[in-house]
Amino acid sequence: MISILILGDGNVASHLYKAFSKVNTIVVTKKNSRNLTNIPNTDITILAVSDDAIAEVSSNIANSLVVHTSGSVAMTSLKNKGRKGVFYMLQTFSKDKNVDFSEVPFCLEAENEKDYALLATLAQLVGEKVYPVSSEQRKALHVAAVFVNNFTNHMYKTGSDICSEYKVPFAILEPLIKETAAKIEFLSPAAAQTGPAIRKDQKTINKHLALLNKQQQEIYTTVTKSIQNGN
Amino acid sequence: MISILILGDGNVASHLYKAFSKVNTIVVTKKNSRNLTNIPNTDITILAVSDDAIAEVSSNIANSLVVHTSGSVAMTSLKNKGRKGVFYMLQTFSKDKNVDFSEVPFCLEAENEKDYALLATLAQLVGEKVYPVSSEQRKALHVAAVFVNNFTNHMYKTGSDICSEYKVPFAILEPLIKETAAKIEFLSPAAAQTGPAIRKDQKTINKHLALLNKQQQEIYTTVTKSIQNGN
Repeated sequence: MISILILGDGNVASHLYKAFSKVNTIVVTKKNSRNLTNIPNTDITILAVSDDAIAEVSSNIANSLVVHTSGSVAMTSLKNKGRKGVFYMLQTFSKDKNVDFSEVPFCLEAENEKDYALLATLAQLVGEKVYPVSSEQRKALHVAAVFVNNFTNHMYKTGSDICSEYKVPFAILEPLIKETAAKIEFLSPAAAQTGPAIRKDQKTINKHLALLNKQQQEIYTTVTKSIQNGN
Repeated sequence: MISILILGDGNVASHLYKAFSKVNTIVVTKKNSRNLTNIPNTDITILAVSDDAIAEVSSNIANSLVVHTSGSVAMTSLKNKGRKGVFYMLQTFSKDKNVDFSEVPFCLEAENEKDYALLATLAQLVGEKVYPVSSEQRKALHVAAVFVNNFTNHMYKTGSDICSEYKVPFAILEPLIKETAAKIEFLSPAAAQTGPAIRKDQKTINKHLALLNKQQQEIYTTVTKSIQNGN
């Protein structure tokens, strides 16, 4: 039996609570992080709070093992007196969408092997993909995630804006978007690169630039240059 | 019965040939575009040649209806004396990967309704998604495709480079990549945007920039600015 306290009231806290509640060998309690009285004593305390609140909330927890769920905060930012760890799930959590935890990578860190093993056991009770990731690696992963998720989404947004302007249904692009994402499961992104930039097809590049607004041109030029430099 | 001649020897030509060959009501011939003698007289002649070759190859074809398969060349660039059209499939074709034509959007254009109907019939014999797309719309689609496919792939590449540098398996990011692509089927890219840029979280942005090389910083800054400007 593992006892868990989740502190937080955002999407991560509620999805985790839901997942843990379904497991017989987990006893889970969830509390708002603004109310730190009557904290139950649990095996693991999970702070699913904003990055800025981690230090302060953790300084008020006397439980033995306190972990946070942030991608960009070091383990040492926890200010509890007991042991520290990280229980970071690299996935986007939306309020209204169920999370398939079997697809979520759990990136775990702890101060000692026993705590790591406990966090790994917990992760495996709800998920399948468990990785040991140090604070420095997690920071790098978090930046990499910004590129593959946030910036990729902005590429979709730009494509969608161009479609709107020329009255073409964005749905035409959806199969290509799916295919582009599916491709990298069997081909490295470097090997999968196609298009006018990598071909150095300046004639097509110029035609494209002529269709874009200033901000779109800036993205087009910067990314094209980076592709051509082999970055 | 529809008779088709495909001129070309790239991936588009060979995938189309394979798909048409399976249909009873299509008779298809494929020829190398460098050998324009003994051209059979067919209902539709499909030029699956490079953009630069379209004008010249088409000027040598006497068949009634000649179409090209390019995303970035206007229908009027065809120089055959007969009727003209476009049979553009918006998808990436790899040499060694089978194409699921039911997922491929066919973007069609013709000079008259009868020819458009013939091209649509042909497309529906191998596929499901058929759209009327003018030359101007097609040009816009082609640029939009560069963003959602080529540039997105470069975001994956950058994420992959960051992972390599910090010795984190890129596989950790694959579920997020899939989720990001899947999300826009039920959420507009504008509504799906998350991350430090849209939150104007300058503290996290600065931490991220400190981890990146100069070229990566340039992409990070340009895309962040564009997200924040609501572009």
